[in-house]
Parts: sequence; C-alpha cells; structure tokens
Amino acid sequence: MRAAIATAAGAPLSLTERDVPEPGPGEVLVKITACGVCFSDLNLLRGHYPFARFPVVPGHEITGTIAATGPGVTGLTAGDAVGAQFLYDSCGNCGYCAAGEQILCPRKRITGVVADGGYAEYALFKASFVTPLPAGLDPVAAAPLMCAGVTAFNGLRQGGAKAGSRVAVIGAGGIGALAVRYAVAMGARVAVIGRSARGEEQAKELGAELFIASADTDPATALKAWDGGANLVLNAAPSTAAASATLGGLAPDGTLLLCGYGSDPLTLPTQPMVLNRLRVMASPSGSPHDLRDALAFSAQHNILPSVTPITLEQAPAALDAMAAGAGGGRSVITFA
Amino acid sequence: MRAAIATAAGAPLSLTERDVPEPGPGEVLVKITACGVCFSDLNLLRGHYPFARFPVVPGHEITGTIAATGPGVTGLTAGDAVGAQFLYDSCGNCGYCAAGEQILCPRKRITGVVADGGYAEYALFKASFVTPLPAGLDPVAAAPLMCAGVTAFNGLRQGGAKAGSRVAVIGAGGIGALAVRYAVAMGARVAVIGRSARGEEQAKELGAELFIASADTDPATALKAWDGGANLVLNAAPSTAAASATLGGLAPDGTLLLCGYGSDPLTLPTQPMVLNRLRVMASPSGSPHDLRDALAFSAQHNILPSVTPITLEQAPAALDAMAAGAGGGRSVITFA
Amino acid sequence: MRAAIATAAGAPLSLTERDVPEPGPGEVLVKITACGVCFSDLNLLRGHYPFARFPVVPGHEITGTIAATGPGVTGLTAGDAVGAQFLYDSCGNCGYCAAGEQILCPRKRITGVVADGGYAEYALFKASFVTPLPAGLDPVAAAPLMCAGVTAFNGLRQGGAKAGSRVAVIGAGGIGALAVRYAVAMGARVAVIGRSARGEEQAKELGAELFIASADTDPATALKAWDGGANLVLNAAPSTAAASATLGGLAPDGTLLLCGYGSDPLTLPTQPMVLNRLRVMASPSGSPHDLRDALAFSAQHNILPSVTPITLEQAPAALDAMAAGAGGGRSVITFA
Amino acid sequence: MRAAIATAAGAPLSLTERDVPEPGPGEVLVKITACGVCFSDLNLLRGHYPFARFPVVPGHEITGTIAATGPGVTGLTAGDAVGAQFLYDSCGNCGYCAAGEQILCPRKRITGVVADGGYAEYALFKASFVTPLPAGLDPVAAAPLMCAGVTAFNGLRQGGAKAGSRVAVIGAGGIGALAVRYAVAMGARVAVIGRSARGEEQAKELGAELFIASADTDPATALKAWDGGANLVLNAAPSTAAASATLGGLAPDGTLLLCGYGSDPLTLPTQPMVLNRLRVMASPSGSPHDLRDALAFSAQHNILPSVTPITLEQAPAALDAMAAGAGGGRSVITFA
Repeated sequence: MRAAIATAAGAPLSLTERDVPEPGPGEVLVKITACGVCFSDLNLLRGHYPFARFPVVPGHEITGTIAATGPGVTGLTAGDAVGAQFLYDSCGNCGYCAAGEQILCPRKRITGVVADGGYAEYALFKASFVTPLPAGLDPVAAAPLMCAGVTAFNGLRQGGAKAGSRVAVIGAGGIGALAVRYAVAMGARVAVIGRSARGEEQAKELGAELFIASADTDPATALKAWDGGANLVLNAAPSTAAASATLGGLAPDGTLLLCGYGSDPLTLPTQPMVLNRLRVMASPSGSPHDLRDALAFSAQHNILPSVTPITLEQAPAALDAMAAGAGGGRSVITFA
Repeated sequence: MRAAIATAAGAPLSLTERDVPEPGPGEVLVKITACGVCFSDLNLLRGHYPFARFPVVPGHEITGTIAATGPGVTGLTAGDAVGAQFLYDSCGNCGYCAAGEQILCPRKRITGVVADGGYAEYALFKASFVTPLPAGLDPVAAAPLMCAGVTAFNGLRQGGAKAGSRVAVIGAGGIGALAVRYAVAMGARVAVIGRSARGEEQAKELGAELFIASADTDPATALKAWDGGANLVLNAAPSTAAASATLGGLAPDGTLLLCGYGSDPLTLPTQPMVLNRLRVMASPSGSPHDLRDALAFSAQHNILPSVTPITLEQAPAALDAMAAGAGGGRSVITFA
Repeated sequence: MRAAIATAAGAPLSLTERDVPEPGPGEVLVKITACGVCFSDLNLLRGHYPFARFPVVPGHEITGTIAATGPGVTGLTAGDAVGAQFLYDSCGNCGYCAAGEQILCPRKRITGVVADGGYAEYALFKASFVTPLPAGLDPVAAAPLMCAGVTAFNGLRQGGAKAGSRVAVIGAGGIGALAVRYAVAMGARVAVIGRSARGEEQAKELGAELFIASADTDPATALKAWDGGANLVLNAAPSTAAASATLGGLAPDGTLLLCGYGSDPLTLPTQPMVLNRLRVMASPSGSPHDLRDALAFSAQHNILPSVTPITLEQAPAALDAMAAGAGGGRSVITFA
Repeated sequence: MRAAIATAAGAPLSLTERDVPEPGPGEVLVKITACGVCFSDLNLLRGHYPFARFPVVPGHEITGTIAATGPGVTGLTAGDAVGAQFLYDSCGNCGYCAAGEQILCPRKRITGVVADGGYAEYALFKASFVTPLPAGLDPVAAAPLMCAGVTAFNGLRQGGAKAGSRVAVIGAGGIGALAVRYAVAMGARVAVIGRSARGEEQAKELGAELFIASADTDPATALKAWDGGANLVLNAAPSTAAASATLGGLAPDGTLLLCGYGSDPLTLPTQPMVLNRLRVMASPSGSPHDLRDALAFSAQHNILPSVTPITLEQAPAALDAMAAGAGGGRSVITFA
C-alpha cells in the first residue's frame, strides 16, 4: 500500500510503499477513503511533539470502510463506513475509560503521532475507537469532522451552550466556522470575533447575528453591550491573548472556553471573576461518544466544512502551503 | 473445576465438574473468591426468565482474582482483584455503549442467565466488564455489592439524591439497607418505610432519622409532614403498590424511583403529578462505571452488607431457605 | 373600566363596569393590551375549580403596559411592556420561592381563578410576577405565550430536550404546535403524533421529520423504529391514555412528560421501565424565569401562535365556540 | 439604638446613638442578636471599597428576630428568627433575579457597605433577602454562616463537589474550616493544604484524610499522588498564587475554584488545562436560596464555627486585633 511517513523530527514527509497490516485482537483494518491535513500534522513534522514515535504515518481526520476485523471484534463488518479520530486508544481500565470519557485517560494515545494514522491506503484501529459514519454523510467532506468537528461540537457542549445562549466564537477558521454553525443549529445566538472587518460577511452567512472586528473594537466592551455579555466565549484562534481579552465581555456565570490557544500563559484578573462567578476552561477534542454525537448532529443539519480533495502525492505541497499561511478550505487526501 | 449448573427451567441446581475454560480475545479468566446468592438466581431456576440460556452457571455477584488474560487484553494482570456483575456484556457499538452506559444497551446480556456466572471455581468475563476491587475491601463481604450495592448506589444517583436531600427508602433489606447507609454517607436526611414497627431500631442504627411503619401510618401523610415531603423515594421493596402509595408524600419536584417492584402495573393519579412536577422513574443496577464508583464509595465509608459464607455444596439449601422466606444476612458462596 | 366577570360556578360570563384598582405595596397596575381565551377559562366558568374565588375576572394570558406602580416597586416604570401569567403569586418565603421556582410553591395562587385576571381593561399584579416583553414581540400574538408558550418551552426544558434529541409531541394544538417549533429551533429532531393522517401536512410545515397517525399506526412501535425510540415524548393532548400508549416507544433513558392529561390515572407497566431506565414526569407551566426565557426564545426565533383578535364583548361567544369544539387559532381579547 | 458607624474611608469606627428606623414597603425591621466581625469590615474602614456609601453601619453576618414588617410584607411575622447576609438587595427585574441568582445581578448591593448592616441594635432589610433560621441553630455561633458559611457551602456546590469527590481546601481558617466540614458531611474525601505542618492536627480533626504543608511539599505533586489528583481545589486562602500552584494537582476534568484570592492576577499554563479539560472558576458567596440550603445543612450536621462573643463597644478592638493578624475564633458582636 502507499503511505506517507514522518521519519524523524524535522525531516520532510516521505512517500513509500508498505505491506498492508493485519488486525490483531480487538482491532479493525480500515481502507481509508479520506484523511484531512491538519495543522498538527505540520507540528509533528516540525518536531514539536516530544512524545511522537517516529517513524509514523501522520493523519487523524480519517474516514474509510472496514476491510477486515481481528479476533474478538463484534458488531463491525467488512464494508461498514467509519471514522477514526485524534484519540487512538486509552488504557481501558481507569475511571475515565469506564465512564466513556477516554479523552481524559492519563494514558490516552494519539493517532498519527504515536500510532500510524491516515496518510496511507490502510490503517489499523482499535474497534472501540472507530465511530460509524451516519448514512448520507459524504466521507470526503466529513473527514475534518473527526477532529475540527468534534472539537467544536464538544467545546460547545462542555461550555454549556444551550438554546437561547449568547455564544461568541473567536476566529471563524476550521474549528470556529463549524462552532458557529453548530451553535446556530442548537438555537443559540452567535457572535463572531475576527481580526478585521473583512470577516463580517462570512460570519453573517454562517448565521452569526453580530460581528466584532477586534482590530477596530474592544471585544470585551462590544460583548458586554450584547444584552449583558456572552454566556460562552469559545476561543478557536491560536492565541491565548485573544481569549483573555474577552473575559470582561462575559455575562455573570459566563464561561471562557479554550479550544485554541498560544504558547503564552493565560493571565486573568481575579476580582471580576469572583464578582461575576466566571469560569475559564479548556477542551481537548472529544471521546468516541462525543464524535458520534457530533457526526449525527452534522448529518441532521447538513453541517460540513468546505474541503479541497488532493492526492497523497500532493500532501507535502499542501503542508508547505499551510506552513506558508495559505487560506482556503481544508485539504483532504483522498484514495481512489 | 467444581460448578453448580441450572440445567433447565424448573430443574434443581446440579453440582458437577467441568474443565476450566480458556479466555478468548478480550476475555479474562477469573478465579472466583466469592459469589452472592441472589433472589434472581431463584427466579432463574424456577424458569421465570424466558430469555435464559440453559444449561448455565448461575450467579452474578462475583469477586475474584484474574487467573489468565486472553489475546488483546491490556491493563489487567494475573492476580488482580476484581468484581464481576449482573451485566455480562453489551454490543459495544451503540451510543449507550460509547457513552459508558452499557446498562442501557438494547443488546446487553446478563451474567448467570445467558452466560456462565459465579457458582463455579472459575469463570470467563469480558475484560471491559470486570471492575477492579478497591484495596482493603473484603472480597467475601463485597460480593453482594456487585448487584445490590450498585443498584442502591446508582438508584440514589439516578434519583438525584444530594447532600441535604430528604430521601425515603421503602424496605430495609438487601438493597434498601445499603441505600440507607449510602444516602446517610452522602449527607442526605433519610427516612425508612417498613411494614411494621419492628424495623424501627434497625433503621435508626443504619442512620435514618425517621421510621414509618406502613401497617400503622399512611406513608404519604407521614412523609408530607417531614418538612414538606421527600425529595426522593427509593423503592427497594418487591411491591409496586408500596411505591405508588408514597406518591402523595413527595415534595414538589420530587422523584419516586423503583429499584424494586412487583408484577402489578404502576397506577398514578395525574393531577398531583402535574401540580407538583413529580417524576417517577426506574433504575436497573448500573454500568461498569457506576459499579466502580459504588465500590470506591463503599470502601471510603466502610459500607458492606452482613453476609453468611457458605460452600458451593450448601448453595441448594441456601436457595431453598430463600424460597421459604428465611431472613438473615445474604448467603455468599466462597471458594477456598 | 370594562371587565368580564365569572360570578359563580356554572354562571355565564357577565360583562360589567368596575373602578380601576389602585396598586398596593409591591404591586403594579397593568393596562391590558391583550388576553388569550384559554380552555381553563371555560373550566372555571363550568365550576371545575373548587378552589376558585368568585366573583373573579378570568384570563391568565395577558400582555399590557405598566400604568402605575405601588409603593416599594423599583425597576418597572409606567409604559413598560410586560406579560402576566397563570402564576399570580406565591408565598415568597419557602425554598422554592427563594430558588426562583415559584411554580412549585405549595401556596402559589392562580391568575383569573383566585385573583382577577385579564378579561378587563386593567388589572393589578405583583411586581415580581410580571415579565418584561422582549422588544419587537407583537403583544397580541404573544398573549398565548404567557400560558401555552411557557408550558411548551418549560416542558421541553424539564424533559431534557437537547440539540440532537428525538422529541415526539402528542397533539399539535395550542401547546403542541409551539412545542414542535421550539424543539426544532433547539436543534432537536421532532415527530408529531396525531389522531388522523390529516395532521401530517401541518406537522411537516412546523418542522417535524416524522408524523404518526395513531388511528392507523401503533405509536409505540412507530417511535421505536425511529432510530431506537424517542428520548422525550411530550404529551400535549388532553388524554392520559394517549401518553401511556407511547411508553414502549421511548429509547432507553427516555422521558414521558405530561403537559396535557385526562382525568383517568396513568397506568404503566414496571418491567420495561426498569429495563430501560424510563422516566415519567409532569410539568405545570413555569416560573417567572421560565416565562422570561420562553419569551426571549420566541422573539429570537419568531415563534408566535396564530391568533384571532376579538373584543371583550365577543368573549362569551368565543368560549361557547371553544366548548363546542371549534378549531382554528386561539382567540385573543384585545383592548384598543 | 446603639450603632457603630464607618464615617469615612480611613476613619475609625465611631460608636453612636441613632433612631430605630421604620420599615418601608417590602422591608422588615430586624432586632439584631449577633453580627460577625469580618475581614471585609476592616477593608471598608481602610477605604478599600470605592463603591462604599459613607456613613454606613458595617456588618453583614447578621442574625436576629423580626421586630416589625413594612407594608406589603407577607409570610414573616414579628419574632421570627432570621439571618441577613452580604447581599443586601438586587434589581429584582433581571434574568438573574428571576432565576433566584440574585448574587449575579449586575445591580446587587452589599450590606454594611452601601446599606446599613449589623453593627447596631436594629437594621432594616428587604423581606425577600432575609432567610429563616432553622430551629435549633444557635444565633450567635450561626452569625458567621451568613457570609463564611454560605461562601464555603456554595463554593463546594458551584465547584461540583459530590459524594466520593476528592476535594482539596487551601487554608483552614474561617471559610476553609467550614468548607472542610461541609465537604466531609457531603461524603467527599478531603485534603487540606496549609502553610506549615502545624495545621495537620486541626485538619485531621475536621475530617481531612490528607494534609499537605506547602512550605515543605509541592502541593501539585502531593495532590497528583492522591489517587490521580483532586477533582476540586477550593482556595480559601487570601492568595492567588497559592491557588495557581495547585493547578497541576487537579485530576482530569478537575476544577480550581477561588473563594479567596489576592490582588495579583491568576496566571495559568494553557497546555495542561487543554490536555486535562481543567476548569478555573470563582464564586462570590451566594444567593438567598444558597444561604437557606447552607443553614439547613449546617443544622443537619451541626456545623458551626467557633466564635468569641463580644459587645459592640469591643468591636474596634476586635478589628484592631484582626488587622494585627491575631488568630483565634471569629469575634461576634452580641446584643443582650
């Protein structure tokens, strides 16, 4: 099979041929349909993940079909359409795993970083970590839902977004645009905070009722004027400072939730937090049950990202373009 | 190995020798330390479970140690002390399974009824359905926690018992006595509803502040006089009528929860339910994560039932005594 | 001022002139814009409410403007647009009142039954029991939201409806049609259960994905085939039997919630409730904070019932038509 | 009546005579039994509250009896034992007030800072902001529950403390010692983090299973070794740095809650927060319904602080001793 491999920290992506692996007990072999190209793939290649296990096949936004099942696997059959995600597996024996919160397991492992991922024609996954694809969901456009989608959906859920909530989303890129659409479909009221006024039209098309250009307007002040403040601010920008700048824009009992963040620490004034009972939290994608719910909700409301299909051979160029800051839809590797 | 077998509906328990089974993929072989004798074992033998798979080894209140692990099992090692419960396995692929709510899986299977249970020296279990025993928990006294314990604990949880809640428990037998002690340890206020005044002393010893003898006093009236009514009534008696007789004793927003019930339907007046926003629900033991929490809480507060150790050979007599209505502590089969 | 009065149980509505009352401490005088004609007004006149206080001005679906404020009232000013509801006042001193759950107060009183309501040009209300009308909400169409709207909205909330939930609504009349539209706007999937196939077109227009004609199809079977069952069934039909007929159509962990009910008791089989951890509950309209949220959500999503404006003088005829079972939109008394 | 008055920022407490005030609409006159001397009274006198309204009678930990009721007050009668708290009143018209969350009202006002408090023989309060004292609760020892008690109790509630939770409390002074006892009574497991090993004995007496001396041991490391970390850290020390030093000691999904804090900002690393889905929040005492629950729970479990009764004339000396850092129980002014 064809595969692209990260051989070492700092080395370029290497295209090669490999044997198709065989599923062991509890494993499934997935014939890959599509794999999204994510910014964290770039971080892996650049050597930013000290816990990476080289050589490794990158990619954790994966859709495909079951090609074979290993011993002891029940309930999944060859041909079933499935998705595989960021969370490769977990210990299976701790309280978090027992409660279906595998994303919190201290021994969780990450697809495409410590186990081979989706930049290949086939990959092995643990049967209990693949998620059925809802009927009718296009497997190419759905690939980024496995990471960006569940992160946005579960961020809203963890942050307590409800029908009627005022939800502000910082950054309307991959995760942010999905968060806006999910929040609108949940019956929330939505504001988008972008850098410049250029983002306003897109935000309104996504369903936001308010757009705040942080280059022109203090976002905390603008949010506070929005019927008393946001109940939830979901930060989808790669900037901690962008998040903390909105703290004063929260309504009492409000939550600032980090999906995106930078390398700088979060610095928060305590007195306004205490006076208004504010909450700051962070959310790391989701567990299999979160992905299942995110996919069902995406199918119900037809919420899919716009993607650009590429071949495996085009993946290095797509990563270079991403590194150079090119915009546009998410590149998704597809296999014929 | 020695085993006791239910060979057919209506047939007596049969003691026999069998080969020790070998664990398949994802399975563990457990050397059994203790197995509680539960009323549902009697129901099985009497043929009350049309879905039973004969011949079958009864018993679903099991403690033991891992003797061997099958292919693909990680995180469990020979010698680990574990418990096994009512829930033998589930489909592993539905939304309930993904969310750690296997007890709700439409394809769940029951230990000792459709799969061999604990009336034997060894048994096979699915690795993800055994639960580690907390250090210091006596494995003989702990056996009934696997069913009665988790049912009581999870009933309180599902019913929303909280610190300061007024919780009434109907029946202070196996499940009921544990429910009283758990509720007291959670900081709730507790009432016990028994048949006759003879139960009062035991109820007070368990920590109840109020005892209601339903033979002498209308339980609804007595509960309503208890600072406005119970926030939760947990029925642990095998009688639906005993439960519905307390509906008028619920405080507004209160919950009547059935752990126990009879074969008669639940008949409820609607108007008081609407006026006071009442809730009636039922709860079927619990999922592995519920059992894990129940065991940890039992160990923390030293809550264990009183048990009578017996040999496997004494099991038929213990079942006969149970059928004849003998009281006393729970019989627990132990293996040297 | 003009007013219509229920003088005694069984007596017809009597139109008369009265002095405009003066607000006492903590009260406001409301100049009434509109008052919905509700089925319970008919029940009052027929003498079905033994706790009624005759003579009384009926009507509890009220919108208007503040005309004057009594001593000690702050935060409300003459001219403010407000709504007044079913809940006239409550004791103010119990735990339910302290927690904003006045609808659960054992000493709550009902507008238009024990205190004068909205069939008049002016009425007095407690300042803490009127709710500001959101800007832009038409006060005539909004009148039925004060009862039917908050009952539907709060029923969904109490029943745990969420984005992605499968919600079935029995009966698409006043409360039911609003429940369907609210549930759709919350991102839920919605089924409607009606008597005959004639209701299908309207149900689909309201946003339901599924219509079940209970005259032709067993509703429990049809719901169970809907991806495993409904997570919530909201009964908006005046029939207890219609509600209990859906119990088998609940998904595990599902809730059957009564907004509507008949005079017959609720009869439920226990075993399926226990096996599937089902919940049956009832919900009596809502507290002021629920009404506030219902109005905000109605304004956000432009969810308003269709109404027929009438004069006060036409109220007796509208009640007669309602008694005769005439359909059509809700009659709303308006004052020029 | 005798009263002690803060006349201006920086001025000493002044003892004087005043007329007993008369209750207006919706108000009650309370004959004061006891008033706790709180550190924030010192902050007021020192001029740290720019929003203070001088002259003002300090004191917000108040117990007493109703002496008279103003027009429109129902449900409270002369002689009723009540408590009055930090929260003097709120707007009564916003969503927070409607929902019983007056502590979050943007226009809330503070007793003893902008309205006269409890350093006097009588004071006026809004009827809806006094809370009945449970029978049997000593009104002198109970006075500090009105502030320290509800802050500790509601902090645990807001932070999600449950039966079986691992709760760490930083600082076992006024709020902290109560938090430890409440958490133990709720069935949680409790650790105390103090400065030096001298606090260990007291912590164990209060019911803690673990004591961490932060001068000797890194608290994050010690907490992480406590079965995987704390589910909740409640900071009751007047130090933001003490709180942030425990972030690494939280279990996944854990919460760091600030009841106490210093003037320095909270500085938090983002990556561990995201990886473990951590939450940082703050909690400002509580609303009337929280105080009601805190008092009921205190009475149920006999949780009262140790206090030193003083006369009004001794209040200036007690404040001086507090300023000088004297330890010992809380001083409570009593009126014969």
